[in-house]
Amino acid sequence: MAKLSGFPEFLPAERNVELVVLDHLRSVFELHGFASIETRAVEPVEHLLRKGEIDKEVYTVRRIHATEDPTGHDRTGDALALHFDLTVPFARYVVENAGHLEFPFRRYQIQRVWRGERPQQGRFREFTQADIDIVGRGELAFHFDVEIARVMAEALAGLPVPALTLQISNRKVLEGFYRGLGIDEPTAVMPIVDKLDKISGEKVLELLQTDAGLTRDQAAQCLGLAEITSSDDSFVAAVRALGVRHPLLDEGLEELAVVVTGAAGTPGVTVVADLRIARGLDYYTGTVFETRMAGYEHLGSICSGGRYDELATDGKSTYPGVGISLGVSRLLVPLIADGLTADRSVPSAVLVALVDEDGRAESNDIAHMLRARGIPTEVAAAPQKFGKQIRYAERRGIPFVWFPAADDAGHQVKDIRTGDQVDADLATWAPPAEDLRPRIPSSQEQHS
Amino acid sequence: MAKLSGFPEFLPAERNVELVVLDHLRSVFELHGFASIETRAVEPVEHLLRKGEIDKEVYTVRRIHATEDPTGHDRTGDALALHFDLTVPFARYVVENAGHLEFPFRRYQIQRVWRGERPQQGRFREFTQADIDIVGRGELAFHFDVEIARVMAEALAGLPVPALTLQISNRKVLEGFYRGLGIDEPTAVMPIVDKLDKISGEKVLELLQTDAGLTRDQAAQCLGLAEITSSDDSFVAAVRALGVRHPLLDEGLEELAVVVTGAAGTPGVTVVADLRIARGLDYYTGTVFETRMAGYEHLGSICSGGRYDELATDGKSTYPGVGISLGVSRLLVPLIADGLTADRSVPSAVLVALVDEDGRAESNDIAHMLRARGIPTEVAAAPQKFGKQIRYAERRGIPFVWFPAADDAGHQVKDIRTGDQVDADLATWAPPAEDLRPRIPSSQEQHS
Repeated sequence: MAKLSGFPEFLPAERNVELVVLDHLRSVFELHGFASIETRAVEPVEHLLRKGEIDKEVYTVRRIHATEDPTGHDRTGDALALHFDLTVPFARYVVENAGHLEFPFRRYQIQRVWRGERPQQGRFREFTQADIDIVGRGELAFHFDVEIARVMAEALAGLPVPALTLQISNRKVLEGFYRGLGIDEPTAVMPIVDKLDKISGEKVLELLQTDAGLTRDQAAQCLGLAEITSSDDSFVAAVRALGVRHPLLDEGLEELAVVVTGAAGTPGVTVVADLRIARGLDYYTGTVFETRMAGYEHLGSICSGGRYDELATDGKSTYPGVGISLGVSRLLVPLIADGLTADRSVPSAVLVALVDEDGRAESNDIAHMLRARGIPTEVAAAPQKFGKQIRYAERRGIPFVWFPAADDAGHQVKDIRTGDQVDADLATWAPPAEDLRPRIPSSQEQHS
Repeated sequence: MAKLSGFPEFLPAERNVELVVLDHLRSVFELHGFASIETRAVEPVEHLLRKGEIDKEVYTVRRIHATEDPTGHDRTGDALALHFDLTVPFARYVVENAGHLEFPFRRYQIQRVWRGERPQQGRFREFTQADIDIVGRGELAFHFDVEIARVMAEALAGLPVPALTLQISNRKVLEGFYRGLGIDEPTAVMPIVDKLDKISGEKVLELLQTDAGLTRDQAAQCLGLAEITSSDDSFVAAVRALGVRHPLLDEGLEELAVVVTGAAGTPGVTVVADLRIARGLDYYTGTVFETRMAGYEHLGSICSGGRYDELATDGKSTYPGVGISLGVSRLLVPLIADGLTADRSVPSAVLVALVDEDGRAESNDIAHMLRARGIPTEVAAAPQKFGKQIRYAERRGIPFVWFPAADDAGHQVKDIRTGDQVDADLATWAPPAEDLRPRIPSSQEQHS
């Protein structure tokens, strides 16, 4: 049975890495008051299509026994497809449940999504995303842009991965700047500037003239703007120095300065204003986010989002929002392929040894007492020689082996990493806190 | 946008019920050393078919832009379908990764599955299951049957749901008893006895004669066996009293007595031997499990499984196992429809009030300090009158509102349920432990 390309699966120790990451994300999101929701995996095909075109490779879903008509609809009347992101289903959920939700509505959503694209590095057909969004009804104050940036910065800061840089820009800065230069169609400029990651500045200059119809001076100014980056609000002066003026530019610069300074200062993550970042998608209207990982720049942005004035509308109300989506699989699958793993393949911190099969009840009782104090514990599968039972623990990464006493006083526990074996009191002994759950050794430990 | 029948979705407070349940299950499973795995959502269609027949309504999955041939295969060569349980993908995972797994392998798996069945009460097209299995390579000792029963009994015992009864039987008891009666085809008897839930004993008696070809005496004996149940090992004497003898019956009775007494004694769940339980599926070979919920017997079994001698085989080895699967959606969707919910729709335990917009930075700092001590906290969306900010908390079920002081000494916190407002020290105040996370009020509290 060959593995299916584009559908990654983890071994247990690798899954423990993913659990550490997902638990951390959930913890940060919940500390900030974001409510968990999950949506069904399928949507009617029509809801997944934008402007009548299929711009994503969606997977359609059909009952194998369905009575089909030539249009592909089954007898329930809906042609269904797997969702390709968490934003479209969230928009549908908000409209469908608006009467039962409290606005502004903060939600996080960690689920799998599917795309029928050709698999390549960092691109999968099935993958996990972690999204946070804040959505208002009618309006949503600007300070929520700062909050989204701050929460995701805290979430990124605690991940056991190479250095991350959260890059923030603002569509108003770009559009205002382009308009101030006399460019009538700013949306023709953004997709070209957005390519600066992949092509040279010289090529961008050329495309801005040939494809967007700019003068050489206009193109040079646009490139000059895109090259500005700073980890504080000094980018404002740098933009001003280019000499372009427009009210929308002023508004954008003010917003961006507030978001960058508000999200900066989270230890463990770098936050920068980066005016290259435009985000291709039409629906962003202000703040935009991308994220790069050191040494893995070829993956592109692993965490992206922004401000949209209309997530959804139901005729009566519009629902503006701001959100950001972390590509959990895009982040973890390459790191795990490169050797990132956890210190064990099981949750167990303790293996209780078995003297002989008659002693199983006693070993079970010991395990039960340790579990009652929150210590994940398993009992040896068979009463092999102790050396073999220790190797059983070793192969799974279980750090401690408990040796039952003939009477209450003689219990001993061995740290199999150091070989230290000491007397232990069943009512009080506990592993060090850092050994209680699977953890990800720091890269230093991994290489030692 | 109409809801899709058979694809349940939860509102945030309902989702908090599901989170409480899933967290509890995970905690019990991990305390017992079960490793988490997840498998991809799709399998090649052929792997989902048993014996060349399609006995489940599977959902096939196809790229909307795929170049198709008339057999339904896309150009990657595989016709794919969504998995309809977690057992088939787990069997594939075990064989595929056998060289990287340690046996006996304990795993839990909590994921969604899909079935294209007609939606009805307790039956969905998309639903969540929580499975535990222990799998060996070549052999798996019997004591793991006891362990699986014990672990699921502990898991069921902690659920915030009506009384659950874990019913245990053993296929060897049934088959041995039938053979002892001179019945040549025990597998023809089991599906009929299995219907005792739905049809009368008299009707079963009749079917055993007309459909399975038994004599009236044989049929009466089979019905007599099926009516035996006990919460200890007294069922053994009751079976013996029927006067039937067979070596397989002896083996089955011994096993069942050990499993029932081993799983009994978990406070909060009833464990019984129940000889009606046969499980329809061919592949069970010994212990079998079902579970009923008081007042919701019409849902059928909400947690089922058993011992199978061959989960999978790869030519070189066979992988025997024992497992049990909890239908999380089947359990929760009807209870939630009947009013089961959490005390809040957000994780926040505290809302920090806002004096005016200039005070946002100060309120943010207060929230930051509370979060640093693990207290989920949000800041009011707008500097409305305090009465309105309190109602903001009330509508979300947030139990505490924090009123910032002009100076460090004057902070106050209000419990909005009692109206009590007291001075609070930002460095030390914490909500009572039971208010820290969303919880499910007991049915007494819900009705008061």
